[in-house]
Amino acid sequence: MSKNKKHLAILGSTGSIGTQALSVVSQHSDLFQLFVISANSNHELLYQQVKKFRPKHAVINTKVGYEFLKKRVSLKETTISLGMEALSQLVQCDEIDLVLTAVVGSVGLVPTISAISANKNIALANKETLVVGGELIMSLAKSNGVKILPVDSEHSAIFQCLVGENINSVNRLVLTASGGPFLNLSKENFKNITVSQALKHPNWSMGNKITIDSSTLMNKGFELIEAFWLFGLSEKKIDIIIHPESIVHSLVEFVDGSTKAQLGWPDMTIPILYALGFPDRINHPFKPLSLIDCQNLTFFKPDEFRFPHLQLAYSCLEKGGTATCVLNAANEIAVEAFLNKKISFLNMFKLVEMSLEKSIFVNNPNLEDYLYADSETRKITSELISKI
Amino acid sequence: MSKNKKHLAILGSTGSIGTQALSVVSQHSDLFQLFVISANSNHELLYQQVKKFRPKHAVINTKVGYEFLKKRVSLKETTISLGMEALSQLVQCDEIDLVLTAVVGSVGLVPTISAISANKNIALANKETLVVGGELIMSLAKSNGVKILPVDSEHSAIFQCLVGENINSVNRLVLTASGGPFLNLSKENFKNITVSQALKHPNWSMGNKITIDSSTLMNKGFELIEAFWLFGLSEKKIDIIIHPESIVHSLVEFVDGSTKAQLGWPDMTIPILYALGFPDRINHPFKPLSLIDCQNLTFFKPDEFRFPHLQLAYSCLEKGGTATCVLNAANEIAVEAFLNKKISFLNMFKLVEMSLEKSIFVNNPNLEDYLYADSETRKITSELISKI
Repeated sequence: MSKNKKHLAILGSTGSIGTQALSVVSQHSDLFQLFVISANSNHELLYQQVKKFRPKHAVINTKVGYEFLKKRVSLKETTISLGMEALSQLVQCDEIDLVLTAVVGSVGLVPTISAISANKNIALANKETLVVGGELIMSLAKSNGVKILPVDSEHSAIFQCLVGENINSVNRLVLTASGGPFLNLSKENFKNITVSQALKHPNWSMGNKITIDSSTLMNKGFELIEAFWLFGLSEKKIDIIIHPESIVHSLVEFVDGSTKAQLGWPDMTIPILYALGFPDRINHPFKPLSLIDCQNLTFFKPDEFRFPHLQLAYSCLEKGGTATCVLNAANEIAVEAFLNKKISFLNMFKLVEMSLEKSIFVNNPNLEDYLYADSETRKITSELISKI
Repeated sequence: MSKNKKHLAILGSTGSIGTQALSVVSQHSDLFQLFVISANSNHELLYQQVKKFRPKHAVINTKVGYEFLKKRVSLKETTISLGMEALSQLVQCDEIDLVLTAVVGSVGLVPTISAISANKNIALANKETLVVGGELIMSLAKSNGVKILPVDSEHSAIFQCLVGENINSVNRLVLTASGGPFLNLSKENFKNITVSQALKHPNWSMGNKITIDSSTLMNKGFELIEAFWLFGLSEKKIDIIIHPESIVHSLVEFVDGSTKAQLGWPDMTIPILYALGFPDRINHPFKPLSLIDCQNLTFFKPDEFRFPHLQLAYSCLEKGGTATCVLNAANEIAVEAFLNKKISFLNMFKLVEMSLEKSIFVNNPNLEDYLYADSETRKITSELISKI
């Protein structure tokens, strides 16, 4: 392995962001070397990735997958490990320069903390990490001199606009939201929304969980929380606007009245390239953005009546403590229940709202408090499913 | 005078940019101290400015104005000088930190060169300086370690987008153009355009010369030339798009496919604040940009058939040498002739085109070559007026 290449750990390599990141790595093998890859359960794809990229270590989260890989992979080339604990140890390896956390859900928290503790810079595609434990993560990152590089189109946009600027010169952040598939659907039709309708995002191709979160705007609420932690601005200074074309990915307003924005076609390749290459930009083939082809860029105020999830994010952020952790856990169970057709689209909100009322609240939480609030909320929410 | 304040020379203090800059200075007297101000002929306003700001030196370009000021101003507070030569000396004073060149036309060239020679950073609102002598100015600035800070909304936008970025990561610059008052006028109606129609810019309130240049898109052509010199990119990497709302002030496309833009209401205060405050942003009261109020941002390809001036700029830039200097001089005479109702709107282009054919061309010009090409072209163009 070349010492000059950036050595990467990619957590969640078989997911949507993970596979796109691997595509970037394969096109820039002069810049990157895969050192660790991990997957939850897709051992077949992980096996293909191991064969192609020959990482030093691969981790799978299921016993079935572990046995599958053990049989097929030569230990001399790639060691195979099972479970999150092994992963949390491997991300601390000296060789690693950057850890891309691209797993789905709050399981990203523990290995990310482990990597930060070992002074690894983090490319963060798992927004739950900050939604659940933002305070803990950011203070740990700060004390360890670790950079958190966002791999979310909105936060990458803001991060790019802030390069070379002083954070004290920022007056306001503006997160753009496509509005999802139900932007123009009337409230009375929300009760009939099916899973397949909710999975059809107009602009972005993403995983199932995040696509449902986009359809309720819960995803934008999580991004608000993420921005709050990443950039250290009060939620009162973070606005959300609907921009159906998804060309302007977000904006920063400065104290002199100037606004900067980052734009591009809706394609996660740019935020991935930026986070992996930072502080350099990677010369990469692309289809140039043509504003002439876009013609009209439009912007609207979000409708809190049809999309009440957004307000939940603001209020949980204001409440602080474990509130956003509970919001995330309850929402994860609710989305899963909807995807499994156990509850209706509208009942996702109801379920989350009920869980927020019933769940515990801890101020100034530590990691154990977060993990307890997370698991307790999951139990409470799961039990509530049958009651609504 | 406080040593901590930035000491300014403002050349052209009675013009559109000059008066707006003085308004900024008066609102931030904790940051700035006026040291030199100068005007061409508006001695009455210059006198008001001297009384209000008490600069160390004031320069006027007319004898009438000089006598007027001499009679009224106490030398103990402000010395009064006459003419460009005096100004070129005064901009070299040790006390000066930054020279704002906000005069109109190619007369900005000599005092700007003088200031750069004395290692003064330049806030450049006079685009003719770079159009006429870009090669000379930029090489002199480079060898003297001088920063050229653009005070043009488009170039300030690009400059702001480039902060913290590597210029080698830039793939393309995109200058936006409002399209001026005749964006939607059919070609056959161009022959009837009156001076007062051409002076009505839809978005920007500016001086007369630049407003006419905006109506022909010659101004955008000059901005192309300015961008070429300021940012050191080939003209093939600088595009122009029509954006009638004048909200997106310009864009930078990077090698990874990411695009950054600077946005704001059409108001020169932002570029002035940015150039005067650089590298800091000045905390200044402003009306926040509301994209929701803007609703639609639209973008179109410029029509070279109705606006042929634009192509002149590209071809003169490609030709190099004194070509853009000749273009500027011929255009200045043509605009003056149009404003004085000596020629029609359409004949401005014809006059410039004829002048370009008749005028001398020098490759690798020095300052004398530029000044000679400038004065010769003015003669040639003036003589051509009666012939078209």
